Amino acid sequence: MNPLLKEIRHNPLLWLLVFVPAVFAAHKLKPESHTLLFALSVFAIVPLAALLSHATESVAAKTGDAVGGLLNATLGNLTELVIALTALRAGQYMLVKASIAGAIVTNTLFMLGASFLLGGLKHHVQEYNRVSARFQAGLLFLATIALLIPSAMSQADAVPAAAFTQKLSVGLSVLLIVGYGLGMLFSLKTHREEFGSAKHGEAGEEPWPMGLALATLAGVTVLVALVSEIFVESVQKAAEAFGMSQAFVGFIVVALVGGAAEMASAFSGARKNRLDLSVGIALGSASQIALFVAPVLVLVSYFIGPTPMDLQFWPGAVVMMLIATLTASLVTNSGRSAWFIGVLVLMVYLIFAMTLYLLPPKVQ
Amino acid sequence: MNPLLKEIRHNPLLWLLVFVPAVFAAHKLKPESHTLLFALSVFAIVPLAALLSHATESVAAKTGDAVGGLLNATLGNLTELVIALTALRAGQYMLVKASIAGAIVTNTLFMLGASFLLGGLKHHVQEYNRVSARFQAGLLFLATIALLIPSAMSQADAVPAAAFTQKLSVGLSVLLIVGYGLGMLFSLKTHREEFGSAKHGEAGEEPWPMGLALATLAGVTVLVALVSEIFVESVQKAAEAFGMSQAFVGFIVVALVGGAAEMASAFSGARKNRLDLSVGIALGSASQIALFVAPVLVLVSYFIGPTPMDLQFWPGAVVMMLIATLTASLVTNSGRSAWFIGVLVLMVYLIFAMTLYLLPPKVQ
Amino acid sequence: MNPLLKEIRHNPLLWLLVFVPAVFAAHKLKPESHTLLFALSVFAIVPLAALLSHATESVAAKTGDAVGGLLNATLGNLTELVIALTALRAGQYMLVKASIAGAIVTNTLFMLGASFLLGGLKHHVQEYNRVSARFQAGLLFLATIALLIPSAMSQADAVPAAAFTQKLSVGLSVLLIVGYGLGMLFSLKTHREEFGSAKHGEAGEEPWPMGLALATLAGVTVLVALVSEIFVESVQKAAEAFGMSQAFVGFIVVALVGGAAEMASAFSGARKNRLDLSVGIALGSASQIALFVAPVLVLVSYFIGPTPMDLQFWPGAVVMMLIATLTASLVTNSGRSAWFIGVLVLMVYLIFAMTLYLLPPKVQ
Repeated sequence: MNPLLKEIRHNPLLWLLVFVPAVFAAHKLKPESHTLLFALSVFAIVPLAALLSHATESVAAKTGDAVGGLLNATLGNLTELVIALTALRAGQYMLVKASIAGAIVTNTLFMLGASFLLGGLKHHVQEYNRVSARFQAGLLFLATIALLIPSAMSQADAVPAAAFTQKLSVGLSVLLIVGYGLGMLFSLKTHREEFGSAKHGEAGEEPWPMGLALATLAGVTVLVALVSEIFVESVQKAAEAFGMSQAFVGFIVVALVGGAAEMASAFSGARKNRLDLSVGIALGSASQIALFVAPVLVLVSYFIGPTPMDLQFWPGAVVMMLIATLTASLVTNSGRSAWFIGVLVLMVYLIFAMTLYLLPPKVQ
Repeated sequence: MNPLLKEIRHNPLLWLLVFVPAVFAAHKLKPESHTLLFALSVFAIVPLAALLSHATESVAAKTGDAVGGLLNATLGNLTELVIALTALRAGQYMLVKASIAGAIVTNTLFMLGASFLLGGLKHHVQEYNRVSARFQAGLLFLATIALLIPSAMSQADAVPAAAFTQKLSVGLSVLLIVGYGLGMLFSLKTHREEFGSAKHGEAGEEPWPMGLALATLAGVTVLVALVSEIFVESVQKAAEAFGMSQAFVGFIVVALVGGAAEMASAFSGARKNRLDLSVGIALGSASQIALFVAPVLVLVSYFIGPTPMDLQFWPGAVVMMLIATLTASLVTNSGRSAWFIGVLVLMVYLIFAMTLYLLPPKVQ
Repeated sequence: MNPLLKEIRHNPLLWLLVFVPAVFAAHKLKPESHTLLFALSVFAIVPLAALLSHATESVAAKTGDAVGGLLNATLGNLTELVIALTALRAGQYMLVKASIAGAIVTNTLFMLGASFLLGGLKHHVQEYNRVSARFQAGLLFLATIALLIPSAMSQADAVPAAAFTQKLSVGLSVLLIVGYGLGMLFSLKTHREEFGSAKHGEAGEEPWPMGLALATLAGVTVLVALVSEIFVESVQKAAEAFGMSQAFVGFIVVALVGGAAEMASAFSGARKNRLDLSVGIALGSASQIALFVAPVLVLVSYFIGPTPMDLQFWPGAVVMMLIATLTASLVTNSGRSAWFIGVLVLMVYLIFAMTLYLLPPKVQ
């Protein structure tokens, strides 16, 4: 049997694929019912993201460790990248930035916290590889500093010069990508023995044949791009209808939708007492967004956006990213976990989500 | 002999009880001499707080571990709660907030630092249970984030909406109390074996009989409430007379007065090389104020205060709470102590106290 | 052979001494060519700093451990002190403050990061004494809090009172010097056994005879003072000519020049797999600047400057010092290092350097 069909049969998440044709049909028939389009596109993106992530892993598994690691690291957040690129092309920089900050916060707090909680409810105390967690937390810390500097400088010193922020953002983006590359060299090549158990793939999922994997990768990326267009178009109007602030939509909704597939893997790893996997996915995904997706968006904005995008975030977002990174550092420092650690981390996420939800809609 | 009288005979701190009738008499005779009333009420609160804490421990000891832990955790800062409630009823929100922030800072920095210093002057190197210290520091970190978010949001984004801050404060209060409850479930029930030596009570003090303990609890609470009324009335005028800023009074004086009884226990534990006890009291007391007393005050303010109180603190107080929590985290991370660690922590406290003392009186 | 001449023959860094007469000659002949004078004085200060540091170590080696440690700790940053005093006398407080902040940031990030990187390129994984690193990081953390409080208070609360900042700065300076003294008592006297391998001097350099060492100390200090005068005079004009912001010059250029000698020692230690030495020099030097040089400058400013200097830094500088200290704490927490740790720390430095370089010249 075709492995793709087999996968679809066994993975209930993929049954949501039915929403993909549904959203296109709805967009054709009722282009004005934004709330419906928003809901349908959310449900359509989740299974597509799961397919993308499985296809990436299959290609990675076939190409050997170094190239595979590279591929996984680059395409692991393809969904987020495609959504953000669509928003970028539409000139919705607020949404792009909110979804970057939101993905970092959601991965470090919600994905990590829920993994600790779900794992801890089943296992009394869980242990994981500290070295690997520290490495990811270190990368994340670096990225957060790079992302906070433009805001801190323009806040603290009332520098009005947009030119300064713009030049600085480009420089920081290049630095972050270089740092990301060196980090891969370190973890995949020179010191890979330190990253023991966190690196093997998800057990139970067998890789697809190369041809199928590549075809899925290409086809699904196009589908994600098409659905994203409807999503980005409808999200603003739908947010108003639901009474949610824009910041809440970008930070929480987009981030949860884009990361749904990875969350499924992280949570199942935690339940199977393979917390290394969960921590690796959560922190790895966050640092990938911060060190790869965000700078690529800045650089790409010079070619596809109406005007270049900078890295200056809304101060509240900077505070949240900083606290999220600090929380991840403190929490993963010991290499041990129990359910209450998960509660603590989730509580921080809830504090943020509540704040963003209550925020008056005008402010972002 | 009556255990209460025996206790009073042996504990010089309790000789200060003579100030209780003194303050009532003075209030009757000289209601206008605020400085005198302030001084008398300070000296009267200290022994009452000591009695309250002993009575609470006695009830806790009799009721078995789970209920006892709960009682201890809930009534441990009864003095601070009663003082704050009195100030709340009088509508003095500045004083309430300053005393919350001050209690957190004083417990994490002064009580912890002085314990390390006093213990370290007698013992070369002292060790204590890291797990327990980390747990308390984690709770404290969570609470600090909850307390800083309203200020950070209204600062950073110039949100003028008081309604937003008010709704957010209620939501955060509920979250904090839930977090506090889950934390007790964790430390007293599901993972109590991890909290080894930090949990047994103060040696040398034998529990009172139940009847005496309950009667003391009730009677002394009433006395604390009555003295607090005089204290809150006189503190402002006395501060002016002494040339102290309001912030200094709330932050430093009220916090030291309210915590005097716990400090006596923490310091004696440190001298006896039972640093677990000292760290447990200092950090436990701070996280109790942050996760229980502060949110209870917010919720109660809807019923007894002239207007509801929110959790938005003066920015300087937020900076100090944040630094205090961070210091406690960094310092207790290793589970070892020597005298200089105490000096470092006390120095941070001195920096804050000096700043507050020098602050121009108008600003708070 | 004279040990001084022998040293000069074997140490290529000292060949730069030829720039000392050159800068005096140039100042006489071409007092208006600031760029030339700036460049010459930079090259002249580097070898003088190396001589100063060797002379200090020689005196320290001869006077026994306690006095020697004290001397080393006090005179170790003599070059920075002399440059800052010259700038202070000229009333250039911006330059003084930028060079203090810059020295802290450069030592904790550039010197530490480059040591990790250079050591890590030669050795797979390096270990060092965590206790010693934590002690220095703790001192540094204390100092950073003291340095950030005046700025935080006057920012957050819009206190306009310069008198407040001034009084607070004097109080903080006294506190910092006391803390520094107690720290030496701790590390050199009461708990010296904990500071094992980090304390022995640079191997391969034999101490000079006492007379030569003292004469060098005196003579070279005078030379540094004279060259500093030319440096401080020319730096502003030269910065304009090079298109560098003042903040960049003070933060990066002055700090790199003043610390060149220590960097040479730290880097050579790292290459020889003696990372204890490197970490000790980098963090020790930073905490010495923060806890000794900075407060001494504040106190001395009452006698030699046109007006007293305070400790209120430009907010951007506070953010950078805070991040630098936090980075040093997080990174040295494990006591292990590999090349990528060095890259991470250097990246943070590069982010700061790039930001300062791009900063519009008017803002500082």
